[in-house]
Amino acid sequence: MSGHVTIVGLGPGADDLVTPQVTAAIEQATDIIGYIPYVARIAPREGLTLHATDNRVELDRSRHALELAAAGHRVVVVSSGDPGVFAMAAAVFEALEAGPEHWRELPIDVLPGITAMLAAAARVGAPLGHDFCAINLSDNLKPWALIEKRLRLAAEADFAMAFYNPRSKSRPDGFARVLDVLNAACGDDRPVIFARAVSTPEEEIRVVPLTQATPEMADMRTMVLVGSSLTRVLREGDDPLVYTPRSVVP
Amino acid sequence: MSGHVTIVGLGPGADDLVTPQVTAAIEQATDIIGYIPYVARIAPREGLTLHATDNRVELDRSRHALELAAAGHRVVVVSSGDPGVFAMAAAVFEALEAGPEHWRELPIDVLPGITAMLAAAARVGAPLGHDFCAINLSDNLKPWALIEKRLRLAAEADFAMAFYNPRSKSRPDGFARVLDVLNAACGDDRPVIFARAVSTPEEEIRVVPLTQATPEMADMRTMVLVGSSLTRVLREGDDPLVYTPRSVVP
Repeated sequence: MSGHVTIVGLGPGADDLVTPQVTAAIEQATDIIGYIPYVARIAPREGLTLHATDNRVELDRSRHALELAAAGHRVVVVSSGDPGVFAMAAAVFEALEAGPEHWRELPIDVLPGITAMLAAAARVGAPLGHDFCAINLSDNLKPWALIEKRLRLAAEADFAMAFYNPRSKSRPDGFARVLDVLNAACGDDRPVIFARAVSTPEEEIRVVPLTQATPEMADMRTMVLVGSSLTRVLREGDDPLVYTPRSVVP
Repeated sequence: MSGHVTIVGLGPGADDLVTPQVTAAIEQATDIIGYIPYVARIAPREGLTLHATDNRVELDRSRHALELAAAGHRVVVVSSGDPGVFAMAAAVFEALEAGPEHWRELPIDVLPGITAMLAAAARVGAPLGHDFCAINLSDNLKPWALIEKRLRLAAEADFAMAFYNPRSKSRPDGFARVLDVLNAACGDDRPVIFARAVSTPEEEIRVVPLTQATPEMADMRTMVLVGSSLTRVLREGDDPLVYTPRSVVP
């Protein structure tokens, strides 16, 4: 039997946000590969090998998936959220590009999932209801100057913004600079949403005006959404409603 | 019994891309409200009223949903894709904001779905694997000059780009201007993906270099993705692979 790689998104955390398409792919797999907490979401069964690896070894993990597929295994690579948004799909293609030529003939499928920014947005209303951008705030793989440039241009374009990986133990200071850049570039008090661990028991949601946002409001499990100049808060408190209207008055 | 409004995303078309969370909400509803082709996806049953309306009446539809909920109905508003991305959620909040004060106390939930850009991206690999933006190309609700400004700034930021509503019968010419702006602003031959009716029997996928993209490649059912300057084509033909690497070399 010929092998293949299927890269799937498990969504933000809740089981009822996993698509039936992804569930079916997992049921057909011989091997599951991924970061420890995502592999822990897969139920063990006869005939299924679980390969859980630590963070920051995305390329090793990707090569392993491609090697197993080339040897005939039905491999599923699990990501959180959507695999194509700051997750495992690009890593697998990087490994494919750098690997042996015959890997390019392998069947490779990507199955979409509910990405964190859309789960976070839905939780508070529709803050991404007009044009928006998604930026990974980690400077592990790109220079800090490029992040700042993109923030300034996104503010000038008046996009709503979704930030992945705003802050981590190894990058405690960058997010303070992000808030400084945004305050200078936006010059208003648009809403900022801090959505931590959306759809899990640890979920915490907070909506604050931009000038009151502080770095400590984000950690590595937090998605940060920043409104456009038109984003409005309709309801505050425990069950906030924030949205960006579809219409822009010239 | 108190009523509520739940705004759900049915994904791009295939039933196995509907989350179990959305399926459960539909099973609990007394009323389904939405655009005709989306309501047509809901199975009729005893106790469920289907309210299908034509396109371009989003605010009427939203008011109807809020009125029914205020009268105690369990209303589900159906969108394609994700309801918060160029779909029904923002329209419901616009109606809420303009409506009677007591509507603001109604329980309103938004349940995320697989939005078209992520389904299209997954179909060809991971073209949105690095920072990106999403722009609605319809100028029904915003001035054309703002669309052009956002395109230029997005190119300067070197975002990958996802375009919703690139072209329709009532707006046949705008997309040609979009391609002109992009060719001038990008000045290279990055890949452009035309993904029509993804996950349905009418699905058509095409990947072309930017200079060879033509307006006729898009219609109202097409999602257009434009790579960043780093986006690469790993495989051409019927099963294309396109991705944007995670890493930016300074």
